Amino acid sequence: MSRSNAAARRGSNVTQMHHARQGIITGEMRHVAERENLEAELIRSEVARGRMIIPANIHHENLEPTGIGIAARCKINANIGNSAVSSNIDAEVKKLRTALRYGSDTVMDLSTGGDIDAIRKAIIAESSVPLGTVPIYQAIESVGKPEDITADNLLDLIEHQALQGVDYVTVHCGVLLEFMPLISGRLTGIVSRGGSLMAQWMLHHKRQNPLYTHYDRLLDICKTHDLTLSLGDGLRPGCLHDASDRAQFAELGILGELTQRAWEQDVQVMIEGPGHVPFDQIAMNVRKQQEVCHEAPFYVLGPLVTDVAPGYDHITSAIGATMAGYAGAALLCYVTPKEHLGLPNEDDVKQGVIAYKIAAHASDVARRRPGARDRDDELSKARYAFDWNRQFELSLDPETARAMHDETLPHDVFKTAEFCSMCGPKFCSMHISREIEDWNAALKSGEAAEPPVPATEGPNLSSRRP
Amino acid sequence: MSRSNAAARRGSNVTQMHHARQGIITGEMRHVAERENLEAELIRSEVARGRMIIPANIHHENLEPTGIGIAARCKINANIGNSAVSSNIDAEVKKLRTALRYGSDTVMDLSTGGDIDAIRKAIIAESSVPLGTVPIYQAIESVGKPEDITADNLLDLIEHQALQGVDYVTVHCGVLLEFMPLISGRLTGIVSRGGSLMAQWMLHHKRQNPLYTHYDRLLDICKTHDLTLSLGDGLRPGCLHDASDRAQFAELGILGELTQRAWEQDVQVMIEGPGHVPFDQIAMNVRKQQEVCHEAPFYVLGPLVTDVAPGYDHITSAIGATMAGYAGAALLCYVTPKEHLGLPNEDDVKQGVIAYKIAAHASDVARRRPGARDRDDELSKARYAFDWNRQFELSLDPETARAMHDETLPHDVFKTAEFCSMCGPKFCSMHISREIEDWNAALKSGEAAEPPVPATEGPNLSSRRP
Repeated sequence: MSRSNAAARRGSNVTQMHHARQGIITGEMRHVAERENLEAELIRSEVARGRMIIPANIHHENLEPTGIGIAARCKINANIGNSAVSSNIDAEVKKLRTALRYGSDTVMDLSTGGDIDAIRKAIIAESSVPLGTVPIYQAIESVGKPEDITADNLLDLIEHQALQGVDYVTVHCGVLLEFMPLISGRLTGIVSRGGSLMAQWMLHHKRQNPLYTHYDRLLDICKTHDLTLSLGDGLRPGCLHDASDRAQFAELGILGELTQRAWEQDVQVMIEGPGHVPFDQIAMNVRKQQEVCHEAPFYVLGPLVTDVAPGYDHITSAIGATMAGYAGAALLCYVTPKEHLGLPNEDDVKQGVIAYKIAAHASDVARRRPGARDRDDELSKARYAFDWNRQFELSLDPETARAMHDETLPHDVFKTAEFCSMCGPKFCSMHISREIEDWNAALKSGEAAEPPVPATEGPNLSSRRP
Repeated sequence: MSRSNAAARRGSNVTQMHHARQGIITGEMRHVAERENLEAELIRSEVARGRMIIPANIHHENLEPTGIGIAARCKINANIGNSAVSSNIDAEVKKLRTALRYGSDTVMDLSTGGDIDAIRKAIIAESSVPLGTVPIYQAIESVGKPEDITADNLLDLIEHQALQGVDYVTVHCGVLLEFMPLISGRLTGIVSRGGSLMAQWMLHHKRQNPLYTHYDRLLDICKTHDLTLSLGDGLRPGCLHDASDRAQFAELGILGELTQRAWEQDVQVMIEGPGHVPFDQIAMNVRKQQEVCHEAPFYVLGPLVTDVAPGYDHITSAIGATMAGYAGAALLCYVTPKEHLGLPNEDDVKQGVIAYKIAAHASDVARRRPGARDRDDELSKARYAFDWNRQFELSLDPETARAMHDETLPHDVFKTAEFCSMCGPKFCSMHISREIEDWNAALKSGEAAEPPVPATEGPNLSSRRP
């Protein structure tokens, strides 16, 4: 599809929101409408309203625009990127390909070490989905110590990344100096890397968060390149104990204000959310975000619903993510099995993406989006028809489904066999169901006794106990 | 602990419910009270009310009694057992040990092939948790064709299993002949193996379900040995499309009646539930069961919240199970990654148990049971203190957590290192949090500037935009 490639010019406004508010349906909006099977005008009005974003930096070539918002299907994000401990461009590009192959809707490059610029360039060149970053990671790598960062450093770096084609940036503008005392009493303090770096800077300088004080300059950069802001939750809880506390909600209030200020400049915004939240508090967290942040799209990290399962946090968090998506979150940031333990490898990326495809899809079904259940129904029909190959095709991970089936019944003849190794041939309930179906059909056409005769040896059905 | 071992005598009533209703607190109830950290009298009254069961066949030696009901912690069940395609006693005993090692609260032996009796004996001898079976699997194996089963066969076999020490049996008493037409229009018909066998029998004989017509004889066996009934949902949905339909709820109504008839004889009962249910319908299903079945404990199979992820159904179903547990289900039957594809092996059992420990624990936390979050908090403290070994110890699967950490940082020195490979040393937010904590402490003791000084270069905080 053709994308607007108007050269960025300081002072001009090229954002999707700006066009939407002028009544213009852009190519990006039309593309999103097609992918979502929605009216282009609805997409335009949602983008104008700020309830949907289309992160589409004008410098990101080969982007397939994606809509993120309550009107669209629930989306997922995969984080890749290296750290100082483990660094390799090829490995990151492989992770990107894996994330795209299994259906990630957006990708963030969270590299914190090695040649960050080179990794980002390689990833943008390969990425058909919106790419996000956390610019402060590169800022600190370039200056060495957090306290040496200046507002100019940071803003220059953000513009540098915008020019490279980054579609959205996480900026921790809402971590304010006066919120620091609110983290006393927490079990795990600040767990957002970006949030803690801002905190460290503020404590050293005894000055306010430069991303907050220079927010208008940030908005100028966004307008010029259509860089979308992902307002980071630097004070998100890092464990169940710390969830929904004063620090978290104080920051959320600021993010609501910053959303309005961005919208005044027609800058696209989404809001990042927790993290670690007990299952019963998730819907409340989503409602609160919608209220406080004026329905700007909510981008949640899980949340994990328990802290006791390191090694399985793709599961603990997919549970929370499903609830969040059902409650109205628009973008679910995956968590891999390696979370809290180490940097994810390629297989961890795959496991994370699949767990989150499950969460996003299950929440789309639960929200009763038109057509959301079609693929489930197709797969169920194939299952009932013992069409194993079709079942595999319709699966989120066909290779794994096939391999598990073939573990006990590898031969091709079993691909149409009317049973599997779970029950063996004699017990296959689906097989038996066919006979019942035939009987029901005969009953309808009058070939079978009708109505079914109650057992002579049993109690009279009409006098069944209440 | 000492257990009642009074010899079973036809006509006597040895059930926990019978004792509870006579005001007797049994050793089993006392044991459950200790494990749950609840008053023994509460346990007695819940058992008397039928809202809690303690499946404890008087012939099951070495049983650690377990309470299943809304007042107790949410429990999980692991299914093991072979099929005609795959059969081996040692392999099943290994699966049992794996299920117990990772914390399954009950186990069902669903063997449908090979020497079923020998497998069951071996499993009961090893099992400290309540053991359940589905007797019709053995019945059909012994007679060959479903239609050759007689009520006498089935009841004799149930008594045979009761004498072996089986604690609870799944019986599909609610699959009635007149419900067969209700499955028309389903995508996957009847998916319960036991339910479909009963259906096949009824269609062949044009007579009512013998487990329904001979229900009183079944109750006699239960009274004599304290065999608990798990009233099977033979008409449960096998895909999202079929969820919450007339067939499912017609059967549920019968299960409600059968619950009352069991309670009239002081027989312990739980109710089995679906299966495959969209996320938004799960809480409704639990509420309906509680209402229709008079709050008898609900024993759900997942449910899966999507059909598109064969190979990952431990995840699709753990999501549903968490919601079910939160809504009030008492026992969550695990689903393994191999579901719909083949018979689970030992590792599949492990994956299923861990996913369900997560679901049950997350729902206990969400229900705000006293102390439920303690382990999460301990692990979070260890995480904040960089005590890696303690983190691993507190994990549901310490070996996996340790192995994932050690993949990038294997040396012992990293077990106390103040970072991991995710962020590397410079970016560790937890490390930075410590500095903030120190600053907050200094602030409290008056050593730091107070209150924090707003940035001179930023907007005046008191005039922050609304």
